[in-house]
Amino acid sequence: MTKLVLIRHGESAWNKENRFTGWTDVDLTEKGIEEAIQGGKLLKEADFDFDIAYTSYLKRAIHTLDRVLNELDRVWLPVHKHWRLNERHYGALQGLNKQETAEKYGDEQVLLWRRSFNVLPPELNLDDPRAPRNDETYRDVEDKSTLPLNESLETTIQRVLPYWNNEIKPKMVEGKRVLIVAHGNSIRALVKHLEKLSEEEIMGVNIPTGIPLIYQFDDYFNIIDKYYLGDQQAIEAKMKAVAAQGSSRKD
Amino acid sequence: MTKLVLIRHGESAWNKENRFTGWTDVDLTEKGIEEAIQGGKLLKEADFDFDIAYTSYLKRAIHTLDRVLNELDRVWLPVHKHWRLNERHYGALQGLNKQETAEKYGDEQVLLWRRSFNVLPPELNLDDPRAPRNDETYRDVEDKSTLPLNESLETTIQRVLPYWNNEIKPKMVEGKRVLIVAHGNSIRALVKHLEKLSEEEIMGVNIPTGIPLIYQFDDYFNIIDKYYLGDQQAIEAKMKAVAAQGSSRKD
Repeated sequence: MTKLVLIRHGESAWNKENRFTGWTDVDLTEKGIEEAIQGGKLLKEADFDFDIAYTSYLKRAIHTLDRVLNELDRVWLPVHKHWRLNERHYGALQGLNKQETAEKYGDEQVLLWRRSFNVLPPELNLDDPRAPRNDETYRDVEDKSTLPLNESLETTIQRVLPYWNNEIKPKMVEGKRVLIVAHGNSIRALVKHLEKLSEEEIMGVNIPTGIPLIYQFDDYFNIIDKYYLGDQQAIEAKMKAVAAQGSSRKD
Repeated sequence: MTKLVLIRHGESAWNKENRFTGWTDVDLTEKGIEEAIQGGKLLKEADFDFDIAYTSYLKRAIHTLDRVLNELDRVWLPVHKHWRLNERHYGALQGLNKQETAEKYGDEQVLLWRRSFNVLPPELNLDDPRAPRNDETYRDVEDKSTLPLNESLETTIQRVLPYWNNEIKPKMVEGKRVLIVAHGNSIRALVKHLEKLSEEEIMGVNIPTGIPLIYQFDDYFNIIDKYYLGDQQAIEAKMKAVAAQGSSRKD
Protein backbone atom coordinates (compact mmCIF):
# COMPACT_ATOMS: atom_id res chain seq x y z
CA MET A 1 0.00 0.00 0.00
CA THR A 2 1.34 3.38 -1.02
CA LYS A 3 0.29 6.88 -0.02
CA LEU A 4 0.61 10.10 -1.95
CA VAL A 5 0.01 13.58 -0.56
CA LEU A 6 -0.80 16.57 -2.77
CA ILE A 7 -1.03 20.17 -1.57
CA ARG A 8 -2.07 23.22 -3.56
CA HIS A 9 -0.09 26.36 -2.65
CA GLY A 10 -1.70 28.99 -0.44
CA GLU A 11 -3.05 32.36 -1.55
CA SER A 12 -0.71 34.39 -3.75
CA ALA A 13 -0.63 38.15 -4.37
CA TRP A 14 -2.34 37.76 -7.75
CA ASN A 15 -5.01 35.35 -6.48
CA LYS A 16 -5.97 38.31 -4.34
CA GLU A 17 -5.88 40.76 -7.25
CA ASN A 18 -7.94 38.42 -9.39
CA ARG A 19 -5.39 38.23 -12.23
CA PHE A 20 -4.48 35.38 -14.54
CA THR A 21 -1.25 34.30 -12.89
CA GLY A 22 -0.18 31.12 -14.68
CA TRP A 23 3.62 31.02 -14.79
CA THR A 24 4.01 34.56 -13.41
CA ASP A 25 6.22 34.07 -10.38
CA VAL A 26 4.29 35.90 -7.68
CA ASP A 27 4.85 35.06 -4.03
CA LEU A 28 2.47 34.00 -1.25
CA THR A 29 0.52 36.55 0.76
CA GLU A 30 0.60 36.45 4.57
CA LYS A 31 -2.61 34.47 4.38
CA GLY A 32 -0.97 32.07 1.92
CA ILE A 33 1.95 31.52 4.30
CA GLU A 34 -0.53 30.83 7.10
CA GLU A 35 -2.39 28.31 4.90
CA ALA A 36 0.90 26.52 4.22
CA ILE A 37 1.77 26.37 7.92
CA GLN A 38 -1.69 25.01 8.73
CA GLY A 39 -1.30 22.35 6.03
CA GLY A 40 2.00 21.32 7.59
CA LYS A 41 0.45 21.17 11.06
CA LEU A 42 -2.35 18.92 9.80
CA LEU A 43 0.19 16.47 8.37
CA LYS A 44 2.25 16.59 11.55
CA GLU A 45 -0.78 15.94 13.78
CA ALA A 46 -1.77 12.97 11.60
CA ASP A 47 1.80 11.57 11.85
CA PHE A 48 2.60 11.81 8.16
CA ASP A 49 6.19 11.48 7.10
CA PHE A 50 7.91 11.63 3.70
CA ASP A 51 11.08 10.56 1.96
CA ILE A 52 11.03 12.99 -0.95
CA ALA A 53 9.17 16.12 -2.01
CA TYR A 54 8.34 17.58 -5.42
CA THR A 55 7.32 21.07 -6.39
CA SER A 56 7.25 23.45 -9.33
CA TYR A 57 9.66 26.21 -10.37
CA LEU A 58 7.29 28.84 -8.97
CA LYS A 59 7.97 30.45 -5.61
CA ARG A 60 4.39 30.33 -4.35
CA ALA A 61 4.63 26.52 -4.48
CA ILE A 62 8.26 26.30 -3.31
CA HIS A 63 7.56 28.57 -0.34
CA THR A 64 4.44 26.58 0.54
CA LEU A 65 6.54 23.41 0.55
CA ASP A 66 9.20 25.12 2.69
CA ARG A 67 6.61 25.96 5.33
CA VAL A 68 5.09 22.50 5.26
CA LEU A 69 8.51 20.83 5.67
CA ASN A 70 9.33 23.23 8.47
CA GLU A 71 6.21 22.22 10.40
CA LEU A 72 7.07 18.56 9.83
CA ASP A 73 10.66 19.18 11.00
CA ARG A 74 11.77 17.77 7.65
CA VAL A 75 13.58 20.72 6.06
CA TRP A 76 16.45 18.34 5.24
CA LEU A 77 14.34 16.18 2.91
CA PRO A 78 15.40 16.06 -0.74
CA VAL A 79 13.27 18.47 -2.78
CA HIS A 80 12.96 18.22 -6.56
CA LYS A 81 11.69 21.23 -8.48
CA HIS A 82 10.39 20.88 -12.02
CA TRP A 83 8.63 23.18 -14.47
CA ARG A 84 6.30 20.33 -15.46
CA LEU A 85 4.55 20.81 -12.10
CA ASN A 86 3.95 24.53 -12.84
CA GLU A 87 0.49 26.05 -13.05
CA ARG A 88 -1.38 26.07 -16.40
CA HIS A 89 0.23 28.67 -18.69
CA TYR A 90 -2.39 31.27 -19.51
CA GLY A 91 -0.62 32.59 -22.61
CA ALA A 92 -1.37 36.20 -23.53
CA LEU A 93 -3.89 36.44 -20.67
CA GLN A 94 -1.15 36.31 -18.05
CA GLY A 95 -1.03 39.51 -16.04
CA LEU A 96 -4.51 40.70 -17.09
CA ASN A 97 -7.25 40.89 -14.49
CA LYS A 98 -10.72 39.50 -15.03
CA GLN A 99 -12.18 42.86 -16.01
CA GLU A 100 -9.39 43.77 -18.46
CA THR A 101 -9.74 40.36 -20.07
CA ALA A 102 -13.50 40.67 -20.41
CA GLU A 103 -13.12 44.13 -21.98
CA LYS A 104 -10.53 42.91 -24.46
CA TYR A 105 -12.00 39.57 -25.47
CA GLY A 106 -15.65 39.62 -24.33
CA ASP A 107 -17.30 37.75 -21.47
CA GLU A 108 -18.30 34.75 -23.51
CA GLN A 109 -14.80 34.07 -24.77
CA VAL A 110 -13.30 34.44 -21.29
CA LEU A 111 -15.83 31.99 -19.92
CA LEU A 112 -14.87 29.53 -22.65
CA TRP A 113 -11.16 29.76 -21.78
CA ARG A 114 -11.91 29.23 -18.12
CA ARG A 115 -14.53 26.53 -18.27
CA SER A 116 -13.46 24.38 -21.18
CA PHE A 117 -11.10 21.45 -21.07
CA ASN A 118 -9.27 21.99 -24.33
CA VAL A 119 -9.74 25.57 -25.59
CA LEU A 120 -6.36 27.29 -25.60
CA PRO A 121 -6.02 30.92 -24.47
CA PRO A 122 -4.29 33.28 -26.95
CA GLU A 123 -0.71 32.23 -27.61
CA LEU A 124 2.24 34.41 -26.60
CA ASN A 125 4.53 35.65 -29.35
CA LEU A 126 7.86 33.84 -29.42
CA ASP A 127 9.64 37.07 -28.46
CA ASP A 128 7.26 37.97 -25.63
CA PRO A 129 9.18 38.34 -22.35
CA ARG A 130 6.38 36.32 -20.71
CA ALA A 131 7.25 33.33 -22.91
CA PRO A 132 9.09 30.77 -20.74
CA ARG A 133 11.79 30.33 -23.40
CA ASN A 134 12.74 33.99 -22.82
CA ASP A 135 12.71 33.67 -19.03
CA GLU A 136 15.99 32.71 -17.38
CA THR A 137 14.09 30.55 -14.91
CA TYR A 138 13.87 27.99 -17.72
CA ARG A 139 17.37 28.48 -19.13
CA ASP A 140 18.41 24.93 -18.19
CA VAL A 141 15.51 23.28 -20.04
CA GLU A 142 17.29 21.51 -22.87
CA ASP A 143 14.53 21.43 -25.44
CA LYS A 144 12.94 24.88 -25.28
CA SER A 145 10.21 23.82 -27.69
CA THR A 146 8.68 21.72 -24.90
CA LEU A 147 7.95 24.96 -23.00
CA PRO A 148 4.41 26.24 -23.64
CA LEU A 149 3.25 29.55 -25.11
CA ASN A 150 -0.30 28.89 -23.83
CA GLU A 151 -2.09 25.95 -22.29
CA SER A 152 -5.53 24.47 -21.85
CA LEU A 153 -6.15 22.02 -19.03
CA GLU A 154 -5.71 19.32 -21.67
CA THR A 155 -2.22 20.42 -22.69
CA THR A 156 -1.30 21.06 -19.04
CA ILE A 157 -2.08 17.41 -18.34
CA GLN A 158 0.03 16.37 -21.34
CA ARG A 159 3.13 18.02 -19.92
CA VAL A 160 2.54 17.06 -16.27
CA LEU A 161 2.11 13.33 -16.88
CA PRO A 162 5.59 12.56 -18.29
CA TYR A 163 7.08 13.86 -15.05
CA TRP A 164 4.64 11.80 -13.00
CA ASN A 165 5.30 8.65 -15.02
CA ASN A 166 9.07 8.98 -15.43
CA GLU A 167 10.09 10.52 -12.13
CA ILE A 168 7.52 10.51 -9.33
CA LYS A 169 5.69 7.21 -9.80
CA PRO A 170 8.92 5.16 -10.03
CA LYS A 171 10.00 6.62 -6.67
CA MET A 172 6.69 5.52 -5.16
CA VAL A 173 7.14 2.06 -6.65
CA GLU A 174 10.53 1.97 -4.88
CA GLY A 175 8.65 2.60 -1.63
CA LYS A 176 9.37 6.31 -1.20
CA ARG A 177 6.73 8.37 0.57
CA VAL A 178 6.03 11.30 -1.75
CA LEU A 179 4.74 14.82 -1.08
CA ILE A 180 3.86 17.08 -4.03
CA VAL A 181 3.20 20.79 -3.57
CA ALA A 182 1.90 22.32 -6.78
CA HIS A 183 -0.89 24.35 -8.38
CA GLY A 184 -4.62 24.14 -9.03
CA ASN A 185 -4.25 22.81 -12.55
CA SER A 186 -1.11 20.70 -12.23
CA ILE A 187 -2.80 18.96 -9.29
CA ARG A 188 -5.97 18.56 -11.38
CA ALA A 189 -3.80 16.89 -14.02
CA LEU A 190 -2.67 14.32 -11.47
CA VAL A 191 -6.16 13.90 -10.00
CA LYS A 192 -7.68 13.26 -13.43
CA HIS A 193 -5.01 10.68 -14.21
CA LEU A 194 -5.10 8.93 -10.81
CA GLU A 195 -8.89 8.84 -10.56
CA LYS A 196 -9.38 8.14 -14.27
CA LEU A 197 -11.85 11.03 -14.51
CA SER A 198 -13.54 12.20 -17.69
CA GLU A 199 -12.89 15.67 -19.14
CA GLU A 200 -16.20 16.81 -17.75
CA GLU A 201 -15.58 15.34 -14.32
CA ILE A 202 -12.21 17.01 -13.85
CA MET A 203 -13.67 20.41 -14.75
CA GLY A 204 -15.94 20.03 -11.71
CA VAL A 205 -13.04 19.34 -9.32
CA ASN A 206 -11.91 22.31 -7.25
CA ILE A 207 -8.75 21.85 -5.19
CA PRO A 208 -8.76 23.83 -1.93
CA THR A 209 -5.56 25.71 -1.07
CA GLY A 210 -3.20 24.45 1.63
CA ILE A 211 -5.24 21.32 2.47
CA PRO A 212 -3.37 18.00 2.19
CA LEU A 213 -5.11 15.67 -0.26
CA ILE A 214 -4.31 12.05 0.60
CA TYR A 215 -4.45 9.10 -1.79
CA GLN A 216 -3.94 5.51 -0.76
CA PHE A 217 -3.17 3.01 -3.51
CA ASP A 218 -2.87 -0.72 -3.78
CA ASP A 219 0.15 -2.25 -5.50
CA TYR A 220 -1.42 -1.64 -8.92
CA PHE A 221 -2.05 2.06 -8.22
CA ASN A 222 -5.76 1.54 -7.81
CA ILE A 223 -7.17 4.02 -5.31
CA ILE A 224 -8.16 2.42 -2.00
CA ASP A 225 -8.90 5.66 -0.23
CA LYS A 226 -8.95 9.39 -0.92
CA TYR A 227 -9.58 12.22 1.52
CA TYR A 228 -8.68 15.75 2.49
CA LEU A 229 -7.00 16.11 5.86
CA GLY A 230 -8.68 18.33 8.45
CA ASP A 231 -12.08 19.73 9.35
CA GLN A 232 -14.33 18.38 6.58
CA GLN A 233 -16.92 21.16 6.82
CA ALA A 234 -14.26 23.86 6.57
CA ILE A 235 -12.77 22.08 3.54
CA GLU A 236 -16.18 21.86 1.88
CA ALA A 237 -16.64 25.61 2.36
CA LYS A 238 -13.18 26.27 0.94
CA MET A 239 -13.87 24.18 -2.17
CA LYS A 240 -17.12 26.03 -2.76
CA ALA A 241 -15.32 29.36 -2.42
CA VAL A 242 -12.76 28.22 -4.99
CA ALA A 243 -15.53 27.15 -7.38
CA ALA A 244 -17.40 30.44 -6.91
CA GLN A 245 -14.34 32.59 -7.49
CA GLY A 246 -13.91 31.02 -10.91
CA SER A 247 -10.86 32.22 -12.75
CA SER A 248 -9.20 33.91 -9.84
CA ARG A 249 -8.65 30.58 -8.08
CA LYS A 250 -8.23 28.46 -11.18
CA ASP A 251 -5.30 30.29 -12.65
CA MET B 1 38.11 30.54 -14.85
CA THR B 2 35.69 29.23 -12.22
CA LYS B 3 34.12 30.94 -9.24
CA LEU B 4 32.94 29.42 -5.99
CA VAL B 5 30.90 31.21 -3.33
CA LEU B 6 30.79 30.08 0.29
CA ILE B 7 28.48 31.52 2.96
CA ARG B 8 28.41 30.68 6.66
CA HIS B 9 24.88 30.63 8.11
CA GLY B 10 23.69 33.59 10.18
CA GLU B 11 23.29 33.68 13.95
CA SER B 12 21.41 30.75 15.47
CA ALA B 13 19.58 30.51 18.78
CA TRP B 14 22.44 28.60 20.36
CA ASN B 15 25.17 30.90 19.03
CA LYS B 16 23.36 33.45 21.13
CA GLU B 17 23.16 31.19 24.18
CA ASN B 18 26.82 30.32 23.88
CA ARG B 19 26.24 26.54 23.68
CA PHE B 20 28.10 23.88 21.75
CA THR B 21 25.66 23.40 18.89
CA GLY B 22 27.37 21.05 16.44
CA TRP B 23 24.72 18.88 14.81
CA THR B 24 21.92 20.12 17.09
CA ASP B 25 19.32 21.41 14.66
CA VAL B 26 18.59 24.88 16.03
CA ASP B 27 17.12 27.54 13.79
CA LEU B 28 18.26 31.06 12.89
CA THR B 29 17.47 34.02 15.12
CA GLU B 30 15.86 37.14 13.64
CA LYS B 31 19.37 38.57 13.41
CA GLY B 32 20.50 35.42 11.59
CA ILE B 33 17.68 35.77 9.07
CA GLU B 34 18.68 39.39 8.51
CA GLU B 35 22.33 38.36 7.98
CA ALA B 36 21.21 35.83 5.36
CA ILE B 37 19.10 38.44 3.54
CA GLN B 38 22.03 40.88 3.57
CA GLY B 39 24.33 38.18 2.15
CA GLY B 40 21.85 37.60 -0.66
CA LYS B 41 21.59 41.32 -1.38
CA LEU B 42 25.40 41.61 -1.62
CA LEU B 43 25.48 38.81 -4.23
CA LYS B 44 22.58 40.37 -6.13
CA GLU B 45 24.21 43.81 -6.21
CA ALA B 46 27.46 42.28 -7.47
CA ASP B 47 25.53 40.42 -10.24
CA PHE B 48 26.35 36.93 -9.04
CA ASP B 49 24.37 34.05 -10.45
CA PHE B 50 24.45 30.30 -9.82
CA ASP B 51 23.46 27.01 -11.41
CA ILE B 52 23.39 24.83 -8.32
CA ALA B 53 23.47 25.23 -4.55
CA TYR B 54 24.70 22.98 -1.76
CA THR B 55 23.94 23.02 1.92
CA SER B 56 23.92 20.81 5.01
CA TYR B 57 21.10 18.86 6.68
CA LEU B 58 20.80 21.55 9.36
CA LYS B 59 18.02 24.13 9.20
CA ARG B 60 20.18 27.12 10.15
CA ALA B 61 22.13 26.56 6.92
CA ILE B 62 19.12 25.54 4.79
CA HIS B 63 17.15 28.58 5.91
CA THR B 64 20.12 30.85 5.24
CA LEU B 65 20.34 29.43 1.72
CA ASP B 66 16.58 29.92 1.25
CA ARG B 67 16.89 33.61 2.10
CA VAL B 68 19.91 34.08 -0.13
CA LEU B 69 18.17 32.42 -3.11
CA ASN B 70 15.08 34.52 -2.45
CA GLU B 71 17.11 37.74 -2.68
CA LEU B 72 18.72 36.47 -5.90
CA ASP B 73 15.28 35.54 -7.31
CA ARG B 74 16.65 32.01 -7.75
CA VAL B 75 14.38 29.97 -5.46
CA TRP B 76 13.93 27.51 -8.37
CA LEU B 77 17.62 26.52 -8.45
CA PRO B 78 18.45 22.89 -7.67
CA VAL B 79 19.53 22.56 -4.03
CA HIS B 80 21.47 19.56 -2.75
CA LYS B 81 21.56 18.90 0.98
CA HIS B 82 24.18 16.63 2.50
CA TRP B 83 25.22 15.74 6.04
CA ARG B 84 28.88 15.93 5.01
CA LEU B 85 28.48 19.73 4.94
CA ASN B 86 27.20 19.77 8.56
CA GLU B 87 28.97 21.60 11.35
CA ARG B 88 31.71 19.83 13.35
CA HIS B 89 30.08 17.27 15.67
CA TYR B 90 30.90 18.23 19.24
CA GLY B 91 30.20 14.78 20.70
CA ALA B 92 29.13 14.74 24.34
CA LEU B 93 29.65 18.52 24.60
CA GLN B 94 26.64 19.20 22.39
CA GLY B 95 23.97 21.08 24.28
CA LEU B 96 26.26 22.22 27.10
CA ASN B 97 27.07 25.89 27.48
CA LYS B 98 30.58 27.20 27.97
CA GLN B 99 30.21 27.45 31.73
CA GLU B 100 28.71 23.97 32.19
CA THR B 101 31.51 22.53 30.09
CA ALA B 102 34.19 24.31 32.08
CA GLU B 103 32.67 23.08 35.36
CA LYS B 104 32.49 19.51 34.13
CA TYR B 105 35.82 19.18 32.34
CA GLY B 106 37.97 22.10 33.51
CA ASP B 107 38.98 25.25 31.63
CA GLU B 108 42.20 23.85 30.27
CA GLN B 109 40.57 20.83 28.69
CA VAL B 110 37.82 22.95 27.12
CA LEU B 111 40.41 25.27 25.62
CA LEU B 112 42.21 22.26 24.16
CA TRP B 113 39.02 20.98 22.48
CA ARG B 114 38.33 24.40 21.06
CA ARG B 115 41.76 25.45 19.96
CA SER B 116 43.39 22.27 18.76
CA PHE B 117 43.24 20.83 15.28
CA ASN B 118 42.98 17.16 16.14
CA VAL B 119 41.89 16.67 19.76
CA LEU B 120 38.50 14.97 19.80
CA PRO B 121 35.80 16.03 22.25
CA PRO B 122 34.27 13.22 24.38
CA GLU B 123 32.53 10.62 22.23
CA LEU B 124 28.77 10.06 22.45
CA ASN B 125 27.57 6.62 23.51
CA LEU B 126 26.18 4.61 20.62
CA ASP B 127 22.72 4.72 22.22
CA ASP B 128 22.78 8.46 22.96
CA PRO B 129 19.82 10.18 21.29
CA ARG B 130 22.26 12.90 20.18
CA ALA B 131 24.19 10.34 18.11
CA PRO B 132 23.35 10.91 14.42
CA ARG B 133 22.73 7.18 13.89
CA ASN B 134 19.79 7.46 16.34
CA ASP B 135 18.43 10.63 14.72
CA GLU B 136 15.87 10.14 11.95
CA THR B 137 17.41 13.04 10.06
CA TYR B 138 20.13 10.60 9.02
CA ARG B 139 17.93 7.56 8.47
CA ASP B 140 18.71 7.47 4.74
CA VAL B 141 22.49 7.36 5.25
CA GLU B 142 23.36 3.88 4.04
CA ASP B 143 26.48 3.23 6.06
CA LYS B 144 25.65 4.54 9.54
CA SER B 145 29.23 3.91 10.67
CA THR B 146 30.31 6.89 8.55
CA LEU B 147 28.29 9.15 10.88
CA PRO B 148 30.43 10.66 13.66
CA LEU B 149 30.07 10.35 17.45
CA ASN B 150 32.48 13.28 17.93
CA GLU B 151 34.75 15.30 15.68
CA SER B 152 37.87 17.41 15.73
CA LEU B 153 38.47 19.88 12.93
CA GLU B 154 40.74 17.22 11.44
CA THR B 155 38.02 14.55 11.27
CA THR B 156 35.49 17.16 10.10
CA ILE B 157 37.75 17.85 7.13
CA GLN B 158 38.04 14.12 6.46
CA ARG B 159 34.29 13.75 6.01
CA VAL B 160 33.72 17.03 4.14
CA LEU B 161 36.34 16.43 1.45
CA PRO B 162 34.82 13.29 -0.15
CA TYR B 163 31.66 15.30 -0.87
CA TRP B 164 33.71 18.16 -2.31
CA ASN B 165 35.79 15.85 -4.47
CA ASN B 166 33.05 13.48 -5.63
CA GLU B 167 30.08 15.81 -5.97
CA ILE B 168 30.80 19.54 -5.90
CA LYS B 169 34.12 19.87 -7.71
CA PRO B 170 32.99 17.74 -10.70
CA LYS B 171 30.00 20.07 -11.13
CA MET B 172 32.36 23.05 -11.22
CA VAL B 173 34.56 21.28 -13.75
CA GLU B 174 31.40 20.90 -15.89
CA GLY B 175 31.06 24.68 -15.74
CA LYS B 176 28.34 24.96 -13.09
CA ARG B 177 28.39 28.05 -10.92
CA VAL B 178 28.27 26.75 -7.34
CA LEU B 179 27.01 28.31 -4.11
CA ILE B 180 27.65 26.53 -0.79
CA VAL B 181 25.92 27.59 2.42
CA ALA B 182 27.37 25.75 5.39
CA HIS B 183 28.95 26.11 8.84
CA GLY B 184 32.05 27.57 10.46
CA ASN B 185 33.98 24.32 10.46
CA SER B 186 32.71 22.70 7.26
CA ILE B 187 33.66 25.92 5.47
CA ARG B 188 37.04 25.87 7.22
CA ALA B 189 37.49 22.33 5.87
CA LEU B 190 37.01 23.64 2.33
CA VAL B 191 39.17 26.72 2.92
CA LYS B 192 42.05 24.63 4.26
CA HIS B 193 41.84 22.31 1.27
CA LEU B 194 41.45 25.03 -1.38
CA GLU B 195 44.15 27.32 0.05
CA LYS B 196 46.44 24.42 1.01
CA LEU B 197 46.75 25.82 4.54
CA SER B 198 48.65 24.18 7.39
CA GLU B 199 46.89 22.92 10.53
CA GLU B 200 48.09 25.99 12.37
CA GLU B 201 47.03 28.39 9.64
CA ILE B 202 43.44 27.08 9.44
CA MET B 203 43.03 27.42 13.22
CA GLY B 204 43.62 31.16 12.75
CA VAL B 205 40.90 31.50 10.10
CA ASN B 206 37.58 32.88 11.35
CA ILE B 207 34.69 32.83 8.91
CA PRO B 208 32.26 35.73 9.39
CA THR B 209 28.54 34.87 9.29
CA GLY B 210 26.39 35.74 6.28
CA ILE B 211 29.23 37.27 4.24
CA PRO B 212 29.80 35.73 0.76
CA LEU B 213 33.36 34.43 0.45
CA ILE B 214 34.40 34.39 -3.21
CA TYR B 215 37.09 32.23 -4.75
CA GLN B 216 38.26 32.49 -8.34
CA PHE B 217 40.21 29.57 -9.76
CA ASP B 218 42.16 28.86 -12.90
CA ASP B 219 41.52 25.65 -14.84
CA TYR B 220 43.74 23.70 -12.44
CA PHE B 221 41.88 24.95 -9.35
CA ASN B 222 44.70 27.26 -8.37
CA ILE B 223 43.33 30.33 -6.59
CA ILE B 224 43.53 33.50 -8.69
CA ASP B 225 41.56 35.66 -6.32
CA LYS B 226 39.86 35.42 -2.93
CA TYR B 227 37.75 38.06 -1.19
CA TYR B 228 34.76 38.67 1.02
CA LEU B 229 31.93 40.61 -0.61
CA GLY B 230 30.89 43.86 1.04
CA ASP B 231 32.21 46.59 3.31
CA GLN B 232 35.75 45.39 4.12
CA GLN B 233 35.99 47.23 7.44
CA ALA B 234 32.70 45.80 8.68
CA ILE B 235 33.85 42.32 7.65
CA GLU B 236 37.13 42.78 9.49
CA ALA B 237 35.21 43.75 12.63
CA LYS B 238 32.92 40.73 12.24
CA MET B 239 35.87 38.34 11.90
CA LYS B 240 37.46 39.79 15.03
CA ALA B 241 34.20 39.35 16.91
CA VAL B 242 34.03 35.71 15.81
CA ALA B 243 37.62 35.16 16.95
CA ALA B 244 36.98 36.84 20.31
CA GLN B 245 33.83 34.88 21.00
CA GLY B 246 35.78 31.65 20.76
CA SER B 247 33.67 28.56 21.16
CA SER B 248 30.34 30.27 20.78
CA ARG B 249 31.08 31.13 17.16
CA LYS B 250 33.25 28.18 16.33
CA ASP B 251 30.71 25.51 17.16
